[in-house]
Amino acid sequence: MDNKAMFNLSYGLFILTAKDGEKDNGCIVNTVGQVTSQPNRISLTVNKANYTHDMILKTKEFNVSVLAENSKFETYRHWGFQSGRNTDKLESISFKRSANGLVYIADETNAFLSAKVVSTLDLGTHTLFIADVTDGEVLSQVPSATYSFYQNNIKPKPASTEKRKGFICTVCGYIYEGETLPDDFICPVCKHPASDFRPL
Amino acid sequence: MDNKAMFNLSYGLFILTAKDGEKDNGCIVNTVGQVTSQPNRISLTVNKANYTHDMILKTKEFNVSVLAENSKFETYRHWGFQSGRNTDKLESISFKRSANGLVYIADETNAFLSAKVVSTLDLGTHTLFIADVTDGEVLSQVPSATYSFYQNNIKPKPASTEKRKGFICTVCGYIYEGETLPDDFICPVCKHPASDFRPL
Repeated sequence: MDNKAMFNLSYGLFILTAKDGEKDNGCIVNTVGQVTSQPNRISLTVNKANYTHDMILKTKEFNVSVLAENSKFETYRHWGFQSGRNTDKLESISFKRSANGLVYIADETNAFLSAKVVSTLDLGTHTLFIADVTDGEVLSQVPSATYSFYQNNIKPKPASTEKRKGFICTVCGYIYEGETLPDDFICPVCKHPASDFRPL
Repeated sequence: MDNKAMFNLSYGLFILTAKDGEKDNGCIVNTVGQVTSQPNRISLTVNKANYTHDMILKTKEFNVSVLAENSKFETYRHWGFQSGRNTDKLESISFKRSANGLVYIADETNAFLSAKVVSTLDLGTHTLFIADVTDGEVLSQVPSATYSFYQNNIKPKPASTEKRKGFICTVCGYIYEGETLPDDFICPVCKHPASDFRPL
């Protein structure tokens, strides 16, 4: 098969936030969608390597802030390319709290949803959560950022790659220099696997 | 909560096809996304009212053809607004078959994927399928149609609704005339529930 066919699936982009005791954290995800309207439920898939994943598995609650087309790369870098295990992502960031006490982000977003997990499905590297939507508000009229919009308009264009040999991470733009990319390579910046790299 | 917040989630649009014995069928879905890359698996959520749903539950196989921005409303009407239980949707339609013997659509699309179900989750009105991607090809370079692109560019604008009182189906444009819309109302054209209607 041509693995490029996978790149034609469409996704939104979201700041996923959770709270365990006094500790808040968040990360970037692209897999949130309504699965039933009666009741109003969404599905969410999160990589087990994310600290936020463990918080949700434990507390069964999360918020999703929907990133809009006016979101900046710095925001993706802040939430997506570092781990809350060794940083406090809430420090020096403007945020609000919804009725459930969890953080949501009102800048560069157009809506937030609060959700309560009703079931989970173990998918190996990821967990799929099914959750009741318990709250939500529209925050702006700016269109939602799709993953494709992020690729074309938000992510910085890589510096000239002429005469360089290697592989580029399609998620964050990190360049691995070398003739071959190991199958088990993980991007040191955004933690995506070798399958998200393309040859330069 | 403000239910409009739900409209800011992003989706692609797909022709979902399956085959039971000699009978082929298909419908439109908006909930296909990659959930793990190792192995390469997607999730798919389908309304149990769809004939294609029953075929997939039985045969565990399906194809997804990714609708592109050059897709026409007639295509959504053909696949989405009638049931294969009482029509042959393949008659008078141009289609191809992938290695698994199932139909895929190469017009107005930019890729197809073939998939084999590995697990299912009963969500009440819908079933969520987790499936291994077994095949796939890129079919064109036209960008994927998102649900929001469909709403803004493909779906016909409703005729003037001035002085009319009622509710419009946000999915297909059907207008229900009346002061109040019953909570259990189902759109007679596209079968979406009352929650997908907005006041005129």
